[in-house]
Amino acid sequence: MSVTLAIDAMGGDHGLAVTVPAALEFLRKARGDRVILVGDEPAILEALSRHRTSPDDRLSVRHTTQVVEMDEAPALAMRNKKDSSMRIAIDLVHEGAAQACVSAGNTGALMATARFVLKTLPGIDRPAIASMMPTQKGAVCILDLGANVDCSPEHLLQFGIMGSALVAATENKPSPSVGLLNIGSEDIKGNEAVKRAAALLRSSPVNFAGNVEGNDVYRGAVDVVVCDGFVGNVFLKASEGLAQMLRAFLREEFGRSWLTRLAALLAWPVLNAFRRRVDHRRYNGASLLGLRGIVVKSHGSADILGFRCALERAAEEARHGLIERITAHVEKLTPVDA
Amino acid sequence: MSVTLAIDAMGGDHGLAVTVPAALEFLRKARGDRVILVGDEPAILEALSRHRTSPDDRLSVRHTTQVVEMDEAPALAMRNKKDSSMRIAIDLVHEGAAQACVSAGNTGALMATARFVLKTLPGIDRPAIASMMPTQKGAVCILDLGANVDCSPEHLLQFGIMGSALVAATENKPSPSVGLLNIGSEDIKGNEAVKRAAALLRSSPVNFAGNVEGNDVYRGAVDVVVCDGFVGNVFLKASEGLAQMLRAFLREEFGRSWLTRLAALLAWPVLNAFRRRVDHRRYNGASLLGLRGIVVKSHGSADILGFRCALERAAEEARHGLIERITAHVEKLTPVDA
Repeated sequence: MSVTLAIDAMGGDHGLAVTVPAALEFLRKARGDRVILVGDEPAILEALSRHRTSPDDRLSVRHTTQVVEMDEAPALAMRNKKDSSMRIAIDLVHEGAAQACVSAGNTGALMATARFVLKTLPGIDRPAIASMMPTQKGAVCILDLGANVDCSPEHLLQFGIMGSALVAATENKPSPSVGLLNIGSEDIKGNEAVKRAAALLRSSPVNFAGNVEGNDVYRGAVDVVVCDGFVGNVFLKASEGLAQMLRAFLREEFGRSWLTRLAALLAWPVLNAFRRRVDHRRYNGASLLGLRGIVVKSHGSADILGFRCALERAAEEARHGLIERITAHVEKLTPVDA
Repeated sequence: MSVTLAIDAMGGDHGLAVTVPAALEFLRKARGDRVILVGDEPAILEALSRHRTSPDDRLSVRHTTQVVEMDEAPALAMRNKKDSSMRIAIDLVHEGAAQACVSAGNTGALMATARFVLKTLPGIDRPAIASMMPTQKGAVCILDLGANVDCSPEHLLQFGIMGSALVAATENKPSPSVGLLNIGSEDIKGNEAVKRAAALLRSSPVNFAGNVEGNDVYRGAVDVVVCDGFVGNVFLKASEGLAQMLRAFLREEFGRSWLTRLAALLAWPVLNAFRRRVDHRRYNGASLLGLRGIVVKSHGSADILGFRCALERAAEEARHGLIERITAHVEKLTPVDA
């Protein structure tokens, strides 16, 4: 099945300098798919011409006049930027002209606009943000990463269902195991919401593996990790910060003298293989789950490789019918007497 | 000022095999200090004799007949193990025979017993667990790490005060900066408890630096990071898990072939310097803050170096009058009309 992606070409720290070449790379690899570049048409055409290309049957441009700023308040962006590249990219999904949209813009505005335009799926109270992360055994999907700071047990259950559908769709795992992020593996641990969520997940059709702790996540203990958005965001940012620090320390130690720099040179292929293995760009692209349409958020600072990975993720989700899968999962769950 | 430490010699995964040699190393380095090894006397004497030593004026043994198991329920341990090495070590602090105690045993039992025996300080509702972690600029104190899963804004304020006193005492920083762990640096971010805690911290005598995100912590943005025990525990365990994963990946990549093993050999001094720099053993020893006595918890799996670091931490806290500092901080805080 071929997919059409609507791309917010203006979003992110680098805008067209990243979105246009990433879209072209995506098209080169994904032979059947199409993209719509949404944004300032003259600027997009100029960026395309710099890559010696122009619109064709697989690449079209949709002109818009506004751009949502990275630090703009979501409510203001929604009210005042009805012709923004972000808004129109979402509209294209809503109208069926595209099967998924991708933006590297303001997360809050993207979530608010997507929720307003697309609406949530039946049985889902709140959309969540999910992302894949590397583990010792492969990858794990973790949600929510910051859309919902306070979550009821029912919300956490819905996150489990959505994460499970996401992993089933994109990782080719028919029945992904779902863990609840907690501060101990025993059932009595954690706060009230988490304890009750464990009970709900246990009696749901989800393949619930019980509580997991922060270190279990990277061990690859489960395929999906469920937590509220506050905890998930701290998890994600702490991991980013620690990885940055270790990278900085390694660089410093290898840069101390000509002797250590020589060692770095000799160890280069190994260090490079290591770097590739934990390259966060390969995991770029967070899914806004629970909406009646596929929306993927790229990191604002993503480079071409990173943004292309977000495009591939969006296309994969559309190709494997993510929305239909979530809908089917939620229907299975709803008790007969509800 | 010389300090006497009460050491739970039986606690931890390795018991006497770690606690006894660590105590001997501690005594060798800290010339004026004393230790009391608490536990099964014949076994302790045997362990000492294996190191060709015996009790003297700086090393004494306090015989006990019970041991708290690592997975024992805290309430049961408190009720049934009144002659445990853990309980008696705490009792020695309570009686003034020691100025601090250290245990690598069951965290829940240690906290419950310490709280029961020592009681909390005036103005402190709940004790918290604090630990130092490495950052790009030095070290940061983070609390709570798991003692309190649900925290009111007032609890978070008290954590800020206690963490501030701890860093002032042991890191020689007269006015440590305190950050509130949140999912955005703006004041409007986060859940209700965090938003109200920010207001309380801002109007307190603490040097409040505002909200910090997970990645700011490792950047060394502040000296003290305050969060509830659920979030703190996830932060800590996520960091442990990620560090373990990266270590495993590095080892795998350097172990792939004779060529990569040769590269590892050549890069060895650099990798070793890197490892020393982020050696978690140097940060071993979490402080149970808010009690009328100094209690330090060592990681259960700590080795001799790790346990010795926990002993040094406890001695430092006693030497620099941590309890008096916290008391003074809390008194400064209490409003006149309270």
